[in-house]
Amino acid sequence: MKLQGQEEYEASSAHENVSAGELESDHGPSHSPGSSSETDSRELGVCTDPPLFIQLNELLGWPEALEWRETGRWMLFEEKLEVDAGRWSAPHVPTLALPSLQHLRSLLVKGLVLLDCPARNLLELVEQVIRVESLSPELRGQLQALLLQRPQHHIQTRTWPCWGSTPPKKVPHNENVPLKEQHQNPLRQKLPPEAEVATVLAGELGFLPQPLGAFVRLRDPVVLGTLTEVPLPSRFFCLLLGPAMPGRGYHEMGRAAAVLLSDPQFQWSVRRASNLHDLLAALDAFLEEVTVLPPGHSRESGRWRAFPPGAWPGQRIDVALGPKCPVRSCSGPGVLESFLGTAVAGAAFCLLAGQPLTILSSTGPVLVFERLLFSFSRDHNLDYLPFRLWVGIWVATFCLVLVATEASVLVRYFTRFTEEGFCALISFIFIYDALGKMVNLTHAYPIQRPGFPGYGCFCQYPDPQGNESQWATTKQKNRDDILSMDLGLVNASLLPPSECTQQGGQPRGPGCHTVPDIAFFSLLLFLTSFFFATAFKHVKTSSFFPSVVRKVLSDFSSVLAILLGCGLDAFLGLATPKLTVPTEFKPTLPGRGWLVSPFGANPWWLSVAAALPALLLTILIFMDQQITAVILNRAEYKLQKGAGFHLDLFCVAVLILLTSALGLPWYVSATVISLAHMDSLRRESRVCAPGEAPSFLGIREQRLTGLVVFILTGFSIFLAPVLKFIPMPVLYGIFLYMGVAALSSIQFVKRVQLLLMPAKHQPDLMLLRHVPLNRVHLFTAIQLVCLGLLWIIKSTPAAIIFPLMLLGLVGVRKALEWFFSPQELLWLDELMPEEERSISEKGLEPEQSFGGDESQDSELMYQPKVPEINISVN
Amino acid sequence: MKLQGQEEYEASSAHENVSAGELESDHGPSHSPGSSSETDSRELGVCTDPPLFIQLNELLGWPEALEWRETGRWMLFEEKLEVDAGRWSAPHVPTLALPSLQHLRSLLVKGLVLLDCPARNLLELVEQVIRVESLSPELRGQLQALLLQRPQHHIQTRTWPCWGSTPPKKVPHNENVPLKEQHQNPLRQKLPPEAEVATVLAGELGFLPQPLGAFVRLRDPVVLGTLTEVPLPSRFFCLLLGPAMPGRGYHEMGRAAAVLLSDPQFQWSVRRASNLHDLLAALDAFLEEVTVLPPGHSRESGRWRAFPPGAWPGQRIDVALGPKCPVRSCSGPGVLESFLGTAVAGAAFCLLAGQPLTILSSTGPVLVFERLLFSFSRDHNLDYLPFRLWVGIWVATFCLVLVATEASVLVRYFTRFTEEGFCALISFIFIYDALGKMVNLTHAYPIQRPGFPGYGCFCQYPDPQGNESQWATTKQKNRDDILSMDLGLVNASLLPPSECTQQGGQPRGPGCHTVPDIAFFSLLLFLTSFFFATAFKHVKTSSFFPSVVRKVLSDFSSVLAILLGCGLDAFLGLATPKLTVPTEFKPTLPGRGWLVSPFGANPWWLSVAAALPALLLTILIFMDQQITAVILNRAEYKLQKGAGFHLDLFCVAVLILLTSALGLPWYVSATVISLAHMDSLRRESRVCAPGEAPSFLGIREQRLTGLVVFILTGFSIFLAPVLKFIPMPVLYGIFLYMGVAALSSIQFVKRVQLLLMPAKHQPDLMLLRHVPLNRVHLFTAIQLVCLGLLWIIKSTPAAIIFPLMLLGLVGVRKALEWFFSPQELLWLDELMPEEERSISEKGLEPEQSFGGDESQDSELMYQPKVPEINISVN
Repeated sequence: MKLQGQEEYEASSAHENVSAGELESDHGPSHSPGSSSETDSRELGVCTDPPLFIQLNELLGWPEALEWRETGRWMLFEEKLEVDAGRWSAPHVPTLALPSLQHLRSLLVKGLVLLDCPARNLLELVEQVIRVESLSPELRGQLQALLLQRPQHHIQTRTWPCWGSTPPKKVPHNENVPLKEQHQNPLRQKLPPEAEVATVLAGELGFLPQPLGAFVRLRDPVVLGTLTEVPLPSRFFCLLLGPAMPGRGYHEMGRAAAVLLSDPQFQWSVRRASNLHDLLAALDAFLEEVTVLPPGHSRESGRWRAFPPGAWPGQRIDVALGPKCPVRSCSGPGVLESFLGTAVAGAAFCLLAGQPLTILSSTGPVLVFERLLFSFSRDHNLDYLPFRLWVGIWVATFCLVLVATEASVLVRYFTRFTEEGFCALISFIFIYDALGKMVNLTHAYPIQRPGFPGYGCFCQYPDPQGNESQWATTKQKNRDDILSMDLGLVNASLLPPSECTQQGGQPRGPGCHTVPDIAFFSLLLFLTSFFFATAFKHVKTSSFFPSVVRKVLSDFSSVLAILLGCGLDAFLGLATPKLTVPTEFKPTLPGRGWLVSPFGANPWWLSVAAALPALLLTILIFMDQQITAVILNRAEYKLQKGAGFHLDLFCVAVLILLTSALGLPWYVSATVISLAHMDSLRRESRVCAPGEAPSFLGIREQRLTGLVVFILTGFSIFLAPVLKFIPMPVLYGIFLYMGVAALSSIQFVKRVQLLLMPAKHQPDLMLLRHVPLNRVHLFTAIQLVCLGLLWIIKSTPAAIIFPLMLLGLVGVRKALEWFFSPQELLWLDELMPEEERSISEKGLEPEQSFGGDESQDSELMYQPKVPEINISVN
Repeated sequence: MKLQGQEEYEASSAHENVSAGELESDHGPSHSPGSSSETDSRELGVCTDPPLFIQLNELLGWPEALEWRETGRWMLFEEKLEVDAGRWSAPHVPTLALPSLQHLRSLLVKGLVLLDCPARNLLELVEQVIRVESLSPELRGQLQALLLQRPQHHIQTRTWPCWGSTPPKKVPHNENVPLKEQHQNPLRQKLPPEAEVATVLAGELGFLPQPLGAFVRLRDPVVLGTLTEVPLPSRFFCLLLGPAMPGRGYHEMGRAAAVLLSDPQFQWSVRRASNLHDLLAALDAFLEEVTVLPPGHSRESGRWRAFPPGAWPGQRIDVALGPKCPVRSCSGPGVLESFLGTAVAGAAFCLLAGQPLTILSSTGPVLVFERLLFSFSRDHNLDYLPFRLWVGIWVATFCLVLVATEASVLVRYFTRFTEEGFCALISFIFIYDALGKMVNLTHAYPIQRPGFPGYGCFCQYPDPQGNESQWATTKQKNRDDILSMDLGLVNASLLPPSECTQQGGQPRGPGCHTVPDIAFFSLLLFLTSFFFATAFKHVKTSSFFPSVVRKVLSDFSSVLAILLGCGLDAFLGLATPKLTVPTEFKPTLPGRGWLVSPFGANPWWLSVAAALPALLLTILIFMDQQITAVILNRAEYKLQKGAGFHLDLFCVAVLILLTSALGLPWYVSATVISLAHMDSLRRESRVCAPGEAPSFLGIREQRLTGLVVFILTGFSIFLAPVLKFIPMPVLYGIFLYMGVAALSSIQFVKRVQLLLMPAKHQPDLMLLRHVPLNRVHLFTAIQLVCLGLLWIIKSTPAAIIFPLMLLGLVGVRKALEWFFSPQELLWLDELMPEEERSISEKGLEPEQSFGGDESQDSELMYQPKVPEINISVN
């Protein structure tokens, strides 16, 4: 809206000089954007005006050896030249002293303002600047020579002069042609090609009788030769020279001018200013908006960095490594089916689904349910696969009913409370299984304590006279007391069991069946893979190594940890339990075909009774599938696909029917993997200003990557010869890592941590600013109790009904409305549909009127929740 | 100097009302402190004026339900009331908007300023304030009632109202008597008793025709009843009311007034102001000093916390746990002598030394040298203890010569370069020994791989017919091939070796001497104690647990890690190697008395030749002792004891003579332990303002604590029955931890880390601001090479000359002057005496003139080095 007047300004204000005298009379219409449309114009300005690179050239060495040196540069942040260290500082938030801004203002009022100056090179520009000023011709000459002098730019190139500091070489040159080093400046590659330059020249010049200020806006941006660090066209030129001033007056004034020019709002105004009055109005608008820190506080904090290394806000979740979870497949279908099934089902879903970025997997609650179903059918002597087929048929039916009735709208009742309960349960299952399997392993390979009877093993050879029968009798007699048994007349040796068998002997004694050292070594492998996976993951936020190395180490943390564990295992060569992979392409269960027979050994009525577990499973699948869909459809991902909910549930129903018939695992959209997949497809803006954070543009939506993931998964069945080198403890370590990582990323866990923190050390979370601490703790405690109950139910014989309890979370959340106000729930959770209505009717204003920096709070209100829900297992 | 006029002001300016009109004519002498003496006056003001607690009471609920509520409070930092959450925010740096300060200024100009008002209670004060103002009597009445209304204070008490929010109860009360809850306010215990209160009342009051501003300084501070949060006397009272204003105008203006009052400089001025002009001059002086942040940057950063949790600058090194290192004593004297010798020698030193806070110990380079001496005498078949006695006699002689010639002044040549080399060497010795001993342990308890011959063990009984001789023959025949040997006719069982011996049998086979699982379990114990010691140490800087728990966990990290390791070991009950402690009180070496004979089996000339190693040892002792003394004498510890250097070296010389004669270890001041001891005796200021860092007052100097440490060390010989439960791997883990912790605290290691960091992620170290990165890297590389050479020499047969090489570090440092400028060395190291002279002659100014914020840099120049050199092993 403001932009429509742009041509008008530029036409009318061509080369207009305004002096301070004119200013007093000319209080014409102010063109600085008003407060109401400020945000609009700021955004619009950023979108359409070219970005501005600002540099400060300081005049140093007065009175003896005058030289210009670039001592600072700005885009969004300030970079300061560390003269001694010969490097640019890290980008940081610029801070100014108020007097320097006031001095600048008064210098501009008294000085020269040239808007839309038609100069075509530096010489013309300098002539314009010094001609207008009331200076003696002699001074003009001196000044002109000084202004045309080539400035020193610190251009960071990759040289390594170790021995002594090399002074920059002085080469004769043509002022108007940019130098080679200007072109080679790495900064130039970063800046967008349309960027413009503003140069501020400031310094103390003793021979001037009075301060000299000039502000020039060029009509057409021109490259001003060697004046600027980068060979880009200049738009603004600001000169601030004068006699000695107390302190570092001109340096600070120059910085003030540069910081002003780096402010988007001021830039917008000054590009459109038609006279000095507009310029000063823009400066005053800037002053209205600044933040003031009282003295004594700024020094302590040093520089405020643009943002700390590693904390790039755009990179929350990491690149998918492909589905690693089929390894954890259920005891019904074998490893082979899992791989193959995942590949086929996943690929089919990618081609057909409404939300093609979701990745199917057979992990999580559905897998747990499948395991429960298996043990249930084993306990009741049922033929598992036919029973499972009927469950699948019923589930598919129920799902189709849900699709037909558009039940997906119920998804709005799954608030963060439910999501977190669900996610925490998955994480706990991972952690519990990993630890449980390690405990089982120590039972299989017992630790040999002193006095433990598992000592001793020797090799007995049958002797030529057939004494072996005599041995057997002796053994039978003292079966329970083998240790003190008299061995009688035996031929024996101390060969290890394997060699003993080879040589025709028989290993005897309890020590033959125990393998020493395996238990502790497995534990070491387990801890190693867990710690290294965690450590590699955290490399991303450390400040070591170039970003490429950090990214690789972090993205492939699990793979690297597995490789490390395998290497350690191979190095020591101990007989640790390894991953067992089938070598032949056939159903794992012996004696079954590819298709499951519909009845098998089961009675006919079981096909009807299967509807009951199917109902439970349907709840689970609905929740698992839809919670994933809800998370993927969050506003911040810019993917809104309402219809996809129904289509995807339909696809899942069909797939469940097929996989049940084939005896393959059941698949549902996996939250963690889908998020990781989507995150690997982020499109982010190119960063041009040093210190700027990349902004998120959207997701590269397509069906190809998902397809490739599943094709590769399918091919992994050919990796069997490699996979068999992976020790199981290493994998358990990775499961532990995945569980811990998923758990630590949810807000619920952050709130549990708050329970352990004294109030004064708690982080400055938005929810803590708005909800009393004991209410936060109460909410957390309720969640903990719910999770505890879920876990207890999962561990009892009634385990199979746990999907119902999971659904119960929604009920608990509903009941919470009696204990918590809608405002509290808004911060602790999200609102359910009814609450949203009531909130929008009542309005939140009265409660918030004495809140504080409301504008800031309400802006942030919906923001802090975003990173907290994301689950960041790779 | 300014304070001398204080009474004069107070006498002259009693109850003086100045209106805006008077201001124009009265431009009397400005009493605001000039810029030249600002720092002085600021410090003086803080010292003598009582501290000021400022609170902002806001008028909320216009127009319906007017109530006063305290929404912010200030001492050094700001705390904001989180109304919804019902808690005070963490103390943070206050930020203001510039317009609010300008509005405040104009309101004060138009408003009422009462300096030294004689009101004795709130009613009188309110009457004074509203009487002067040109208000209608009706308005006055309303206003008076409003101002006397009791405000709501949020006082954080330890209640736990979980169910619904309890509204604060309204109790009838006498306005002038402070309430019980005011007295119970935990803030009151924190504030010093002499503190005064300033109250700012601000808010929107629609019925006022125009803004109403009043600033009152009370002549005598009085308790204003329930107006203030704490029942302390009030000194200042500021009222800012008016009709509706856009935005949160009065809130921001009130904050501005409070922040102004919290500024020490403004406080100083306003306590001495005699009229409105002085007040405004103080406000303008404040504006001159503020730091301005451009718009758009303040929001991103949120609040700047006073300082992050855990990062208390005063607590760098932690409480000593008593000397743990005698465990590592040398192979010459035994454990018993070590304990006893440490106790006696240390106690004697504590009683006599010039710097009684140093703790003697037999660790570090001197111990290494002693070990080298031992292996040297063993290799050359010398009688060690007599040889050692002569070395001791020579060392004592040389040391006395050093004392007599006042050679301690040479200590000035030990710059940080040398200190770091020394410290890194000690750390590497710790780490190398810990790892080396773990490797030795796996050799003693080999891992049993498949096919490894160490399998099998059985128990052989001598048979009644004396068949044992026959067995023996068979064994002799096939000694090398025991595995495939025919055992012949033997009575045997599979009893474990210990039980076999008990029952009169003999354990046979290679498996009898290997204990399985010990190697990996030891490794687990080693890693456990290392990780837990490290983790407990870091608890201090985490935000979990109350500070008492954090402090205990961190201070006793090593002890807790050892206990944990012992517990784990006892739980599994494996036969891990344990610490061996003598049970009898006698010299460990059999057959020697308490006094070492002067010659023993050595030739007489050895007593002369001993002077050569003694020279080397003297260098080492001199360096070790003096570097410790230099570190303890750093300016920041406020302990300057020049004479102590000589006295202490004298004491060490005498002790070396004594311990040599008794065959006890040699003792030198131990840097790490002495620092830890000293740190446990820090005196720090009591913190009164929330968010304030405690300042260091000095060290509690005495000889008692040192004495007690050594008496307890002496008593630890009675702990033998307990110490024998400590597994060796646990101790090795602690040694590793100590080495790593000591290493990671020196600046050299930080510079090594810089080698791995991309420039843009490097921390904002002062030295990086002033020295080019490649020069920093060069310096680091030279240090690395020196350390490498030292290590290589320590590992060759020429090891015994390593003290000379250590002294060579001083030479290398001297040679560095050819490659580095004094400015660079000033930042990377310290200056040697000659350089200091040359620097002070030349001056640093020319190089620094275009540096940037010089005032800030030069202030910090000597600061960042302090925490970087401190060694922080507990």
